[in-house]
Amino acid sequence: MTVFMNDLLLLNVCCFSAWRYCFYTLWVTNSQVTILDRVPTGIKGLDELLGGGFPEGRCILVVGSPGSGKTTFAIQYLHHGAMLGETGLYVSLDEHPEHVKENLTSYNWDLDSLEKKGKLLILDASGLRRANIKPDGPHPVFSPSSSEGLSFTELLRTVSKVVEGENVRRVALDPVTSLMLRYSEEVKRRRATIAFFDTLADSGCTSIVTSELKTSLMDRRFQLEEFLSHGVVLLHTLMHAGNVVRAVQIEKMRGISHDTQIRPYQFGPTGIEVFPRDKVF
Amino acid sequence: MTVFMNDLLLLNVCCFSAWRYCFYTLWVTNSQVTILDRVPTGIKGLDELLGGGFPEGRCILVVGSPGSGKTTFAIQYLHHGAMLGETGLYVSLDEHPEHVKENLTSYNWDLDSLEKKGKLLILDASGLRRANIKPDGPHPVFSPSSSEGLSFTELLRTVSKVVEGENVRRVALDPVTSLMLRYSEEVKRRRATIAFFDTLADSGCTSIVTSELKTSLMDRRFQLEEFLSHGVVLLHTLMHAGNVVRAVQIEKMRGISHDTQIRPYQFGPTGIEVFPRDKVF
Amino acid sequence: MTVFMNDLLLLNVCCFSAWRYCFYTLWVTNSQVTILDRVPTGIKGLDELLGGGFPEGRCILVVGSPGSGKTTFAIQYLHHGAMLGETGLYVSLDEHPEHVKENLTSYNWDLDSLEKKGKLLILDASGLRRANIKPDGPHPVFSPSSSEGLSFTELLRTVSKVVEGENVRRVALDPVTSLMLRYSEEVKRRRATIAFFDTLADSGCTSIVTSELKTSLMDRRFQLEEFLSHGVVLLHTLMHAGNVVRAVQIEKMRGISHDTQIRPYQFGPTGIEVFPRDKVF
Amino acid sequence: MTVFMNDLLLLNVCCFSAWRYCFYTLWVTNSQVTILDRVPTGIKGLDELLGGGFPEGRCILVVGSPGSGKTTFAIQYLHHGAMLGETGLYVSLDEHPEHVKENLTSYNWDLDSLEKKGKLLILDASGLRRANIKPDGPHPVFSPSSSEGLSFTELLRTVSKVVEGENVRRVALDPVTSLMLRYSEEVKRRRATIAFFDTLADSGCTSIVTSELKTSLMDRRFQLEEFLSHGVVLLHTLMHAGNVVRAVQIEKMRGISHDTQIRPYQFGPTGIEVFPRDKVF
Amino acid sequence: MTVFMNDLLLLNVCCFSAWRYCFYTLWVTNSQVTILDRVPTGIKGLDELLGGGFPEGRCILVVGSPGSGKTTFAIQYLHHGAMLGETGLYVSLDEHPEHVKENLTSYNWDLDSLEKKGKLLILDASGLRRANIKPDGPHPVFSPSSSEGLSFTELLRTVSKVVEGENVRRVALDPVTSLMLRYSEEVKRRRATIAFFDTLADSGCTSIVTSELKTSLMDRRFQLEEFLSHGVVLLHTLMHAGNVVRAVQIEKMRGISHDTQIRPYQFGPTGIEVFPRDKVF
Amino acid sequence: MTVFMNDLLLLNVCCFSAWRYCFYTLWVTNSQVTILDRVPTGIKGLDELLGGGFPEGRCILVVGSPGSGKTTFAIQYLHHGAMLGETGLYVSLDEHPEHVKENLTSYNWDLDSLEKKGKLLILDASGLRRANIKPDGPHPVFSPSSSEGLSFTELLRTVSKVVEGENVRRVALDPVTSLMLRYSEEVKRRRATIAFFDTLADSGCTSIVTSELKTSLMDRRFQLEEFLSHGVVLLHTLMHAGNVVRAVQIEKMRGISHDTQIRPYQFGPTGIEVFPRDKVF
Repeated sequence: MTVFMNDLLLLNVCCFSAWRYCFYTLWVTNSQVTILDRVPTGIKGLDELLGGGFPEGRCILVVGSPGSGKTTFAIQYLHHGAMLGETGLYVSLDEHPEHVKENLTSYNWDLDSLEKKGKLLILDASGLRRANIKPDGPHPVFSPSSSEGLSFTELLRTVSKVVEGENVRRVALDPVTSLMLRYSEEVKRRRATIAFFDTLADSGCTSIVTSELKTSLMDRRFQLEEFLSHGVVLLHTLMHAGNVVRAVQIEKMRGISHDTQIRPYQFGPTGIEVFPRDKVF
Repeated sequence: MTVFMNDLLLLNVCCFSAWRYCFYTLWVTNSQVTILDRVPTGIKGLDELLGGGFPEGRCILVVGSPGSGKTTFAIQYLHHGAMLGETGLYVSLDEHPEHVKENLTSYNWDLDSLEKKGKLLILDASGLRRANIKPDGPHPVFSPSSSEGLSFTELLRTVSKVVEGENVRRVALDPVTSLMLRYSEEVKRRRATIAFFDTLADSGCTSIVTSELKTSLMDRRFQLEEFLSHGVVLLHTLMHAGNVVRAVQIEKMRGISHDTQIRPYQFGPTGIEVFPRDKVF
Repeated sequence: MTVFMNDLLLLNVCCFSAWRYCFYTLWVTNSQVTILDRVPTGIKGLDELLGGGFPEGRCILVVGSPGSGKTTFAIQYLHHGAMLGETGLYVSLDEHPEHVKENLTSYNWDLDSLEKKGKLLILDASGLRRANIKPDGPHPVFSPSSSEGLSFTELLRTVSKVVEGENVRRVALDPVTSLMLRYSEEVKRRRATIAFFDTLADSGCTSIVTSELKTSLMDRRFQLEEFLSHGVVLLHTLMHAGNVVRAVQIEKMRGISHDTQIRPYQFGPTGIEVFPRDKVF
Repeated sequence: MTVFMNDLLLLNVCCFSAWRYCFYTLWVTNSQVTILDRVPTGIKGLDELLGGGFPEGRCILVVGSPGSGKTTFAIQYLHHGAMLGETGLYVSLDEHPEHVKENLTSYNWDLDSLEKKGKLLILDASGLRRANIKPDGPHPVFSPSSSEGLSFTELLRTVSKVVEGENVRRVALDPVTSLMLRYSEEVKRRRATIAFFDTLADSGCTSIVTSELKTSLMDRRFQLEEFLSHGVVLLHTLMHAGNVVRAVQIEKMRGISHDTQIRPYQFGPTGIEVFPRDKVF
Repeated sequence: MTVFMNDLLLLNVCCFSAWRYCFYTLWVTNSQVTILDRVPTGIKGLDELLGGGFPEGRCILVVGSPGSGKTTFAIQYLHHGAMLGETGLYVSLDEHPEHVKENLTSYNWDLDSLEKKGKLLILDASGLRRANIKPDGPHPVFSPSSSEGLSFTELLRTVSKVVEGENVRRVALDPVTSLMLRYSEEVKRRRATIAFFDTLADSGCTSIVTSELKTSLMDRRFQLEEFLSHGVVLLHTLMHAGNVVRAVQIEKMRGISHDTQIRPYQFGPTGIEVFPRDKVF
Repeated sequence: MTVFMNDLLLLNVCCFSAWRYCFYTLWVTNSQVTILDRVPTGIKGLDELLGGGFPEGRCILVVGSPGSGKTTFAIQYLHHGAMLGETGLYVSLDEHPEHVKENLTSYNWDLDSLEKKGKLLILDASGLRRANIKPDGPHPVFSPSSSEGLSFTELLRTVSKVVEGENVRRVALDPVTSLMLRYSEEVKRRRATIAFFDTLADSGCTSIVTSELKTSLMDRRFQLEEFLSHGVVLLHTLMHAGNVVRAVQIEKMRGISHDTQIRPYQFGPTGIEVFPRDKVF
């Protein structure tokens, strides 16, 4: 923290007032009494920005650009819960569950072992692949029977059943985009999204839902689901001084104080690592 | 104020003329005779920018980005009234009323006690959650019977009835977005919005209505409701010199003089705190 | 003016050529012979920019952002006429006439007295509020009988009748936006707008029509009505060097020479005050 | 010109290469042999940029922002022709011909006298105003009988008849926008626009057609008619260093060499005056 | 070239790495073995950028802003071929062939003589002008009989017949825009465009097709036809340091190495002249 | 690497923190244990950025601007495989296969010889050209019988059959754009794209699919297929300091660590060459 303060004094002396409010925010994080229980994410550095973790029982939106690690974030969150003994459910809406696991073999997580112990459940909810992939794969724990993919309602019912039957504590849906595209009228999409977030919250689990960040600009139009979720974590891919930099920003987290700045992250052997005291710009 | 003037002299000597008009505006705020009664918001610093509070009997729009604290603003406004003995009505259009209260437990407000005393009324107007949430929750003071959410007219009628029956002085609707999306034609949306603001004003209450700020840009297209409301408070989330800064701006307040600049704010133990003499840029 | 020239020499020596043409323009304003009679606006500083006032018998468009004072501009214009003995007609298309007057109580104008003397007529043309507001209010001088608001044609006929019957010299319609939204096809909207401006001009009055400025950007798409009106006054809300600044610009005024620069304004005890020799940037 | 060169050396020494090509262009203007006959515009300074005037028998598009002087340009062009003995035809598509003349009384042009001598013909082609304006006005030389405005074809036929019958040498249509809006499909609008420009060219006259510049940006999408006309003159309203500056640019002039830079202009007693050797930026 | 290297060293020493890759590209142009035969364009400086000319038998797209000289480019290309004994075919899709020739009289090309010798063929493919222009003009070598313009297929069949019958080596279609507008669905427009380019390539000729550059911005959305053609030459009109500058850029040229930078050009007595070693910025 | 570090120290000392994360990323590339097998691309420098090559069995998207070398990339990838003994299949969706080969004659690849040995298979999948090109060309190895181009399903079935029958290890589809345009609803396009990528992955081959980069801006809206593919390689054409620079960026590569920066590339005698340690800005 001393180094951080030095940086502050040396480099940012000219924009003192702006820093002041950031600092206030951070101070609030550390000092304020909060009542909501926290669920640690297991993402190095992020829990510090959140003051401990996600608020329990809420549904958090993770919005990221292509290649920003949305799926890594989701599985890392479930993996951490599983290591703490909490059963997690991963709902794959676009990708082969088998590919998801292959993509994460570079991290030191033993997903197969967790799956065997019943601590990690994987639901293939795309409804696309029943027929045309190798039928002997072990992965589809629960497989939908509809041919056109699960409807919003069916999906929620299935998730609720699994959550109740298997005592699930953490849910990750990855990504929500296809579901939302089914509603062409904004008013209906909005209602469905509210119902969706409410049902996940009513399940008692602490959930994350991933979504696609449409643009690489910092200044942008906000997306519908950012207003309706209980919390929003943004995974940016930014250009800065000719470099591509990955950065995380907690845009919103209802009910708790949290850091609001844009912080760099990278992929390391244990998954996503956030640098909670460094700045991107 | 002396420090403020020194800042002005030291840092902004090169853009003297622009400052001059800001200063005029501030001076007007302090000196001018106004006739409209004021309703203090209870938001630290904001009443100073408003020259005392909102004009009595008007309907003010609070437009904010995701995570900017629109709901905090709304409840803080009602809480302050309740502490002064004025009954407040909170109309929740998207969120669980129960979640709303949970989200605000980090502030030192005793909402349950105010609710029990009948000083804070909460209306769940989403029409979505009657069936699928725990039926034994104490929160739905007034619950709509329609299955698809309240229509604009029904909502206004319900609000009017509660206002009259319970001697409500302050109303907060949070957020108005879903209601407005029902009108696909701009001409109809416009008429409905005027009728909506008028009815709230006719109720005799001083009301706030929250709405979603669509973009993080300072330069932007104005939204329909900004032209039609009696006043507009913007809650920005701005990027400045690599920092994320929260800032409030009174864009418009018919009938009274007010500060027009962009001022930083933060979340503290008592809710939103505005720094009325500091600048963001 | 000496101070102004000094400013010019000291601060803008590097962009000499651009200033030169502004100067030419100003010079033209002061020296050129004009034949159209002028109607003084009563807005301090603006008449100087206009070389005396609006050209008589024309219809001027006042386009402003939210909170820029479009209604203040309109009533101030009528108030000034009334003080000179000219009867004025205010046509309110969105707002309660009663609210309009309340909003202007902070200015030292005795609108009620002018109304009683018949020098200020107020027409509530929204067609929305006949039933649901207090019926004993004194304000609706002329009230439409249609339930859905006046049509373009009906409105023009009513205005013409009042103008003729009451010997009206100044008309203000505030705002024209709802009327224009009724035409979804651009070609029809264009024709209706031309007819509308022509009829107002044919009435013999000098009229102003307010409209909404859609964006806070200086660089922007021009709006249809700017091309079709006889004159355009823009009321900007600009960001400059971190400050919000209000500024007026005479974009167009057919038939007369006028200042073309962007000039600051503020709200003072007598209404809008323009600083005709100062610059915003 | 010496001063101009000095400016060049002193101020722009760092962007030498760009200037070089501008200079080449200017040189070409002065030295090249051209075969097309020229029609002097009468606009001070513009003919110098054009190397003498518009190419004879062509149809030139004048595109301008609101208040840029499109109508002044059109009448000034006809007035100059009339002073040289060439009959001119002004076709008014939006504006009262009577208003057009009123708007130009500040210039030292005796339009009424030219009209009486038959050197200036005015055609009211809006088709809107036959009934509702004072019927005893002297202005509608030729009045259409259709109630909904002239069709493209009818208009062209009427213009052709007048051109032939009255030995017209110069035509100005002001503005073409309403005509083009009748075609909702781009492919049809394109065909109609080509036919329109061809017919005007086939008439043997040298014509100008005004159109609306949609945006105040230098970088912009080009408009359909700019590609299809024989020449394009742009009348910009630009922001430069905080000043509003009027500037003309010859974007295109098929068949002749011409200056390509952006040059300031102003309104003087004789109409538009272009400063052909000055620069805006 | 020495001067060029000096410029490089003196002016751009601070952005060395970017220059380095430009240099590599240039080096490749000079040293690499290419197998495709080249067709010299006759445009001074451009052949140097192309390493000799267009690749033989391909169809090149020339995309330009209004007034950038698309037609000049097309005819200059055919003229150069004709001077080398190769028959050229010009297909005019919007403009009077007679006007095209008039517009080019300022260049020292004897088009009439080439036309008489049968070295330059002109096809009026607009299908618009058969009836309403002077029927005794000598220009329509081949005139379509359809009344609504040639269809894509008819046009290609006509072109193929002329190419075969007259032993044409170079074809120029100017411009392709109207043809492409006939397809409202993007998928059909894409297919038609591919078929169009293929047919021209199958004819054995080396062809150019002109198209309209929609915007004056360097950063822009690419147009469909840029992806589908065998090569793209862009004719920009750029603003740089307050000057309007014309610049050419070879965006793409399949099968050959070529310069990729933006190079200035101007119109001289012999047509377009490119400065292949100068830079615009 | 020493030179690289020196560059870092000398030039970028002021933006240390941003570099730090790039460096971390690179370090991870070199040290981390990865389980997915790699398929070397044969593109000089790119394999270094990828830590060896593409992950085996995945489908990689190559998105490029016009002229960026998408087809060169595709064939170079197949050529390299063929040199290693792996059979490659090129599926041409827009371009003549014969033209594709002609365009690549400037590289020192003996495609004909590889084709004869059966190491390079070429599938003309446009369905457009069967009739109207020379029927005696040797190139269409497999030719579709449908007249309107292959449907998504047919194409995939054909590709699968060839892959199985000919023991293909590498597939390149170039480009996917026409296929995606067939779906006007976004929800259907999304489903089809997922199915498409899955089927290619299920074939066991390591595939690349090219797509069109819609804009030259670094800040842009992401395209649907970037979210759905297993990996994304971007081929940019950038403006930097007045120069056009080609640059490659690995936006995403599921399952492996990779460099994330923007690196320059050029076309050399052996195809695309990436400079993996240089920077563009």
